[in-house]
Amino acid sequence: MPRKTVIKRIAPDLVVVGSLALDVLHTSTATARKILGGSAIHFSNAASLFCSVGIVGTVGEDYPHERIRFLHERGVDFSGLEVGAGKTFLWEGRYSEDFTGRQTIRTELGVFAEFNPKIPAHFRKPRVLFLAAIAPQLQLSVLGQVEEARLIALDTFKLWIDTQRDSLLEVLGKVDLFFVNDDEVRWLTGERSLLKGALAIRQMGPKWVVVKKGEHGSFLVSDKGLFMVAPFPVEEVIDPTGAGDAFAGGMLGYLASQSRFYDSTFRRALGWGSVVGSFYVEAFGPDGLRNITKTALSARYREYQKMTQVP
Amino acid sequence: MPRKTVIKRIAPDLVVVGSLALDVLHTSTATARKILGGSAIHFSNAASLFCSVGIVGTVGEDYPHERIRFLHERGVDFSGLEVGAGKTFLWEGRYSEDFTGRQTIRTELGVFAEFNPKIPAHFRKPRVLFLAAIAPQLQLSVLGQVEEARLIALDTFKLWIDTQRDSLLEVLGKVDLFFVNDDEVRWLTGERSLLKGALAIRQMGPKWVVVKKGEHGSFLVSDKGLFMVAPFPVEEVIDPTGAGDAFAGGMLGYLASQSRFYDSTFRRALGWGSVVGSFYVEAFGPDGLRNITKTALSARYREYQKMTQVP
Repeated sequence: MPRKTVIKRIAPDLVVVGSLALDVLHTSTATARKILGGSAIHFSNAASLFCSVGIVGTVGEDYPHERIRFLHERGVDFSGLEVGAGKTFLWEGRYSEDFTGRQTIRTELGVFAEFNPKIPAHFRKPRVLFLAAIAPQLQLSVLGQVEEARLIALDTFKLWIDTQRDSLLEVLGKVDLFFVNDDEVRWLTGERSLLKGALAIRQMGPKWVVVKKGEHGSFLVSDKGLFMVAPFPVEEVIDPTGAGDAFAGGMLGYLASQSRFYDSTFRRALGWGSVVGSFYVEAFGPDGLRNITKTALSARYREYQKMTQVP
Repeated sequence: MPRKTVIKRIAPDLVVVGSLALDVLHTSTATARKILGGSAIHFSNAASLFCSVGIVGTVGEDYPHERIRFLHERGVDFSGLEVGAGKTFLWEGRYSEDFTGRQTIRTELGVFAEFNPKIPAHFRKPRVLFLAAIAPQLQLSVLGQVEEARLIALDTFKLWIDTQRDSLLEVLGKVDLFFVNDDEVRWLTGERSLLKGALAIRQMGPKWVVVKKGEHGSFLVSDKGLFMVAPFPVEEVIDPTGAGDAFAGGMLGYLASQSRFYDSTFRRALGWGSVVGSFYVEAFGPDGLRNITKTALSARYREYQKMTQVP
């Protein structure tokens, strides 16, 4: 009689709950069709360079699983990925020539419309949890399923600030770190000054607020004061899609790899976020970090330190 | 018989040639009428915190000389200031609520229309010369009068790129450092990428190119590579007028106060530029630096170093 084998699955350092999509992207010089997209993919692409990552999300029957093999090879745990009956979330958009604007041409939610995140048992005690920009109600459901995490980080969209403000405020009261872009700071707080807005958001719950200013860098507000990071300059932007998620992935991936969180740990984490974000915009979709080496990453980090230090 | 007394005037460390104006400014919350304006005033207001400054410019009979007493008290040498028959340059403008846009309501050039800079004898060998954004032909005339300078720095306007491109390129070939904003980089080089554009401008002459991105900081390109400075964050912008000139004044004033120019000297200079620029936007016109103390300046510089250092 065969013995029953119990496989204890290894808990990933970092769990992300977010979207997986296929993107059709138009820039002024090129078009990319049905490439890998979605916050969970961009985020784990960056985070898996630093720590073990588990993904919770949903895709349709049409999802090209062979194209995420590079993430499997980096040890990303897809046991929280549900394959639903229907199509994968599809987003089509067009960027303005200088990438400062983008216009949505098509959004087909597919199975993502019914997304109801179920957290696998071995995902329930990650060191770091990242709630990507999904509906606040779903984020609350995830928080109800996760038993403990050293750091819970949140992202959102303007849509949820407009339509589900109360739920979003409830989530904000339960998280440690919040990623927010400049427009969202203003929508959420009514403050014209980003700094005042970020300070106001800290009063809503999160101890750490990271304001992302797109191509203009970002800053962190915490009880240690303010820390600013300039963007690592790239010679040519090819596709900014996912750069914000990659920034968050680099930052939280680095944090999840560290045993203690000092102020300097957060500063380094923002540095890593900037560095991986800069690789991200240099190619379409996830390609900027697909074949990246530790050497190339570290070299750019050192370059970044050097080019930002005020003596 | 009285002996003839020869007074040998002391050469200032830094000479600026630029405009002196009276500004009428409208922001979304206030209006300031006929306050001190013009690049030469804003620049020397900042630079005189670091070194001795001489101004070359022109004003009309209506100029309120008593209001620049604070600059006289800081040792600014106004012997290059001509008082013409007519009115002082007047500019009236309105800022958008978030200060990202500004609209000119009125420009009355007055005596500035006939400005023909004459460099006093003791101004002809400054350590640093700053050609503020006046017509390239006038900048060339200044270069013809100055005998030597360790560093010659240039600023310009989009207007001159459009209308006097050839003269501007001639000036660019004769200067060491060029201050240029993001739009001007694109107009001058046709490059969409600011970094590529700045590198292209280096090929036109200046060894140092400082790209000013307004509220998003700036970066320096030189043969030592790239150095970026994030903006010092201010809680509330009151009036951004002159902040770019004050940034240049802080940077060049610091440089003119140093005996040697190392790469680290330029980095510190950009740091000082950012710090004085941040004080500048916190009040109308020149008031942000009018009564500033060395202690307040140094405290903000240290704060700035701390909040930008990637460990």
